[in-house]
Amino acid sequence: MANQDDLKKLHSLIKDIGFAMMTTTTSDGTLRSRPMASRMEDEFDGTLWFFSHDQEPKIHEILENPQVNLAYADPHKNDYVSVTGTATLVKDKAKAKELWNPFYKAWFPEGLDDPHLGLIRVDVTQAEYWDSPNSKMVQLAGFVKALVTGKEAKGGENEKVDLRAN
Amino acid sequence: MANQDDLKKLHSLIKDIGFAMMTTTTSDGTLRSRPMASRMEDEFDGTLWFFSHDQEPKIHEILENPQVNLAYADPHKNDYVSVTGTATLVKDKAKAKELWNPFYKAWFPEGLDDPHLGLIRVDVTQAEYWDSPNSKMVQLAGFVKALVTGKEAKGGENEKVDLRAN
Repeated sequence: MANQDDLKKLHSLIKDIGFAMMTTTTSDGTLRSRPMASRMEDEFDGTLWFFSHDQEPKIHEILENPQVNLAYADPHKNDYVSVTGTATLVKDKAKAKELWNPFYKAWFPEGLDDPHLGLIRVDVTQAEYWDSPNSKMVQLAGFVKALVTGKEAKGGENEKVDLRAN
Repeated sequence: MANQDDLKKLHSLIKDIGFAMMTTTTSDGTLRSRPMASRMEDEFDGTLWFFSHDQEPKIHEILENPQVNLAYADPHKNDYVSVTGTATLVKDKAKAKELWNPFYKAWFPEGLDDPHLGLIRVDVTQAEYWDSPNSKMVQLAGFVKALVTGKEAKGGENEKVDLRAN
């Protein structure tokens, strides 16, 4: 189990930002990303869920190479999260029902009965975030230090959360 | 050469968002990302530049596997860009001088004379963007369609820009 405070912090950042850019490795070895809406559960245990049509190119990429990165970025708040994980296509109607929101009906008109409705389950193995304090000057400084050097800066945090650790 | 309108659109989106999450493949095959400030040139010819300390983990990752993804995301504007490219570490003082901004002095106190000052050059091979129109309803619909299915939606665009094409 990861530290509960780390999980809470990660959960809160992901929930606030909401949309991830999910990067996958394509069959020719290049990296592509696309926006995905996080479907957060109330309790975050290190697993993230996304709805997806099961014939999408990204599904084929995940089946070939399950390693993904989820980048949550909010340039206005200077919040940035890198989530490393392993993705699986899940065809589980009970789970889909649990995560379902009428919002998705426009894209899955048959709802839970859509034969192509799938879920992408991402098991998070590592996460890092860049989180800046409120002071504008320090925020910028702390933030850019992380940007340029990747090291912790005065007034900013760059924390790694390793969900593989005990 | 890519279509000039495509390059202009891509340039404008990247410039507006400003910060990319750069994803690299680590030596154990997992994917990591971190925020990076784009240093845009006035003319965009398909090459993007970033300042970096030359001993950063990402530099080692790039040397092992130069394939990167740059994800530009602005959840408030619903603008999302995926840039696929090949990264190179460039130690070129003349180029660094051309791109230099006093802003970077806090992290490279010796400025252009810092022996560890490096540039990451990304040659863009493909890019995609999700761009929603102004109407709030259509924007959400267009955007989420792209999110869920990756297909073009009414009122939204999901355009691929292939910079390898003639």
